[in-house]
Amino acid sequence: MKEFNLEQYLPHLSIDCVIFGYEGKELKILISKSKFGDNLWALPGGYIKKTESIDNAASRILFERTDLKNIYLEQFRVFGSETRIIQSSFNETMRAGYRQYDSNRFTDEVISWLTDRFVCIGYYALVDIQKVTTQTGEFDQLLEWRNIHDLPVMMHDHNDIVLEALTALRLNLDSKLIGFNLLPEVFTMREIQELYEAVYERSFAINNFQKKILDLKVLERLEKKFTGAQNKAPYLYRFAK
Amino acid sequence: MKEFNLEQYLPHLSIDCVIFGYEGKELKILISKSKFGDNLWALPGGYIKKTESIDNAASRILFERTDLKNIYLEQFRVFGSETRIIQSSFNETMRAGYRQYDSNRFTDEVISWLTDRFVCIGYYALVDIQKVTTQTGEFDQLLEWRNIHDLPVMMHDHNDIVLEALTALRLNLDSKLIGFNLLPEVFTMREIQELYEAVYERSFAINNFQKKILDLKVLERLEKKFTGAQNKAPYLYRFAK
Repeated sequence: MKEFNLEQYLPHLSIDCVIFGYEGKELKILISKSKFGDNLWALPGGYIKKTESIDNAASRILFERTDLKNIYLEQFRVFGSETRIIQSSFNETMRAGYRQYDSNRFTDEVISWLTDRFVCIGYYALVDIQKVTTQTGEFDQLLEWRNIHDLPVMMHDHNDIVLEALTALRLNLDSKLIGFNLLPEVFTMREIQELYEAVYERSFAINNFQKKILDLKVLERLEKKFTGAQNKAPYLYRFAK
Repeated sequence: MKEFNLEQYLPHLSIDCVIFGYEGKELKILISKSKFGDNLWALPGGYIKKTESIDNAASRILFERTDLKNIYLEQFRVFGSETRIIQSSFNETMRAGYRQYDSNRFTDEVISWLTDRFVCIGYYALVDIQKVTTQTGEFDQLLEWRNIHDLPVMMHDHNDIVLEALTALRLNLDSKLIGFNLLPEVFTMREIQELYEAVYERSFAINNFQKKILDLKVLERLEKKFTGAQNKAPYLYRFAK
């Protein structure tokens, strides 16, 4: 394989994506097992082409791993310590891993570039896991959905990046509901409450929660589906256009 | 003057600071008139040294212009369009301006570097204007406090950066009150309300506002000062330690 093409990217600048998925009442994230070492885990990330905006770079990185387009991504923080990557305990492992994997593709110059200081722009997305077809990117051995409470130690500061993403997600979740298209087309009040409970990791009182959500005035209530046990059937909702 | 030292900085990465100040019930920002052109205005900004974190770079840039240390700064957004700077209508003016100002310091190589693509990390601070001693940085002809409604057209996307900073400031201002140390040591309820009114550009009903602020449970009420007209004297508050 030919040499990794450094020239197309902005140096010292990377993007890492925290891709939240919601499935079976659990909040999960998509993590990558690296090609370049044993049991080396990371967030799906990449670099920014000189010809693309940072938002488009994040969308491309997301698309490469999930086959999803037009997913709402949000920048949430820049990670810019001067010792980031270069003083990471994983740095030596990564250098050896690249070299061993393919020394034609990963020349000394390329390895220096990849293991130098990087300022990382963190993006998060929230996706419906059912709609995702995971596919490995150029640096991934495999990709896996993991419950946010069951994450391995990841390389560099990636576990901290997840915590920051979670904090950002919890901030003003109400205003993000529609953008994320996280829930199915129609859903019950119970389902939306379960989503909130998974994100905030706490339970909400049903009556208060229902009032709070209805007060957002973003939901449209549909007719009850006739089930033969009509009184027990919950109302279905969808987001108002 | 010797050549501008490019080597010390990360390329393609800049910081611009929206320094909000509060004075006489007005919300203002500090803007810079550039050395490199006529009537060219910009946000106070700069580059990131290879040896410093992005947060420290932002603090240094703030310190260079205000002589203030230990001011709370918050990253609020990254501006990363692929056409940023390079397709700005100001780019040609800047090139000519640098050259004309000092062609020894601003060589062709330096000018190319300065007018290439930059991903800009936006930071904002909120300071007490009384405590600021403005001082020009290396790129400033002068610095000026301007009401946020009375800003000139600034270079590149700097007016948009201000709007984004204002949006970010308004988000969860409650949780930022203490960190900003914006108000004097002790203050009245009226003063804190005036600050909110300046930031949100709207009036608040006195009773509701007072309840909302007290519910934050961050204020400590002090004794009324004896003024001879004791019933009319407002309570003074300070932030609880």
